[in-house]
Amino acid sequence: MEKLTIVKVGGKIVEEEQSLNQLLTDFKSISGNKILVHGGGRTATAIAAQLGIETKMVDGRRITDKPMLDVVTMVYAGLVNKNIVAGLQAKNCNAVGFTGADMDIIRAFKRPVKEIDYGFVGDVAEVNTRELSYLLSQNIAPVIAPITHDGKGTLLNTNADTIASELAISLCSDYNVTLVYCFEKDGVLSNPDDEKSVIRELDRESYRAYLADGTIAAGMIPKLETAFRALNSGVNMVLITNAKNLTKPAATGTVVRR
Amino acid sequence: MEKLTIVKVGGKIVEEEQSLNQLLTDFKSISGNKILVHGGGRTATAIAAQLGIETKMVDGRRITDKPMLDVVTMVYAGLVNKNIVAGLQAKNCNAVGFTGADMDIIRAFKRPVKEIDYGFVGDVAEVNTRELSYLLSQNIAPVIAPITHDGKGTLLNTNADTIASELAISLCSDYNVTLVYCFEKDGVLSNPDDEKSVIRELDRESYRAYLADGTIAAGMIPKLETAFRALNSGVNMVLITNAKNLTKPAATGTVVRR
Repeated sequence: MEKLTIVKVGGKIVEEEQSLNQLLTDFKSISGNKILVHGGGRTATAIAAQLGIETKMVDGRRITDKPMLDVVTMVYAGLVNKNIVAGLQAKNCNAVGFTGADMDIIRAFKRPVKEIDYGFVGDVAEVNTRELSYLLSQNIAPVIAPITHDGKGTLLNTNADTIASELAISLCSDYNVTLVYCFEKDGVLSNPDDEKSVIRELDRESYRAYLADGTIAAGMIPKLETAFRALNSGVNMVLITNAKNLTKPAATGTVVRR
Repeated sequence: MEKLTIVKVGGKIVEEEQSLNQLLTDFKSISGNKILVHGGGRTATAIAAQLGIETKMVDGRRITDKPMLDVVTMVYAGLVNKNIVAGLQAKNCNAVGFTGADMDIIRAFKRPVKEIDYGFVGDVAEVNTRELSYLLSQNIAPVIAPITHDGKGTLLNTNADTIASELAISLCSDYNVTLVYCFEKDGVLSNPDDEKSVIRELDRESYRAYLADGTIAAGMIPKLETAFRALNSGVNMVLITNAKNLTKPAATGTVVRR
């Protein structure tokens, strides 16, 4: 099977000109098929504030009422996505930007209201990657904004880690998929105060031990849950790494295995 | 050759829920291959105002400095484009939203500064429709936002009438192309105060006569120039019609012929 690398980058990296430029250079250098999934939360928060819309977060997740949905649609699918695509074109890396609504790639359902009403937030229901495979075969890199749709005309704000993982799962029957989560740290740390304490390998068993003793906590838990879900569904490897090590993630970051 | 209908709709139609919904129903009912090109200027002006950015127009064209470029990128490529795509998906019309940067479809150059500095406004240089043809063959309707790129990483605000016409020209070697310009009037009027004075047919000769006696003036001139450019380059037919007559444009609007 052909190799496919799916790279997910957090907002901070794509929102600063210098780190974005380095990321796009590194992304272009990845050999074989590749997909980029991006965030854009900081810009969304800033534009929302300029528009007089207050940002409310619960456990790191954005409460998305209708005005905020319009902001994230503008920022993720418009401003951030199209600047990434134009930036890749400038490096002779043919690219195309999508949301989940485009070609019905990712259909989601509005998250049911329990203790918290997240508003227009989507949980992935169905992934359809047939056309993505064609575009990959044409040497075109899809760039995915974290917006999906419900099939009834409503766009939904959707977690970018989840989108990357669900795309990886959907594509792993046709490709040998590596999923790379890039962020600002070098990997999963055993001591959050020590940037050098990268856990080099993590499997389900050691993950459980780190969870039990509190080494792994907070925002890292949902990320690792999507990682293990991907691995259990046939994805070859998940890497958690610093964006600046994108060209050598396995040598520097955390390798997550089944 | 297979039929291809390229529909260009102005901002007002796609920015009001009811007229957008009707447009999408009518667009879906067009048989054969189809492409939708849209504007979004009124929303861009409104969002810009909310962000404290002043809109400056010269002869109906938007002066696009960097803050305004960010606004039109957010509004055209994000908010308007993705809501159209989600709206078409809800009607079981598979669609995909693009700018000219995506798959390098439309490359433009920044308009040279003469009497007026339009800022980040692009004039079309190159059109590449190979992947669009593939998507059309898969029964997927491309939805194009009026944003192009310069190939060096910069997005450019580009006239939607021109984009529709240039796409029509590029695709007319492979398809029997009809180009439909939709707007709020029933067609080209011989008396701007009389909505019923639609000129039913227009060729280059009668156009020149109407120009000479002042019947056709102002904003209609660049629209008709792009129409004749398309016809002279092999496009089969151009129609100028009210959006509400999209399902029967030749019977109600202005038919422009070579």
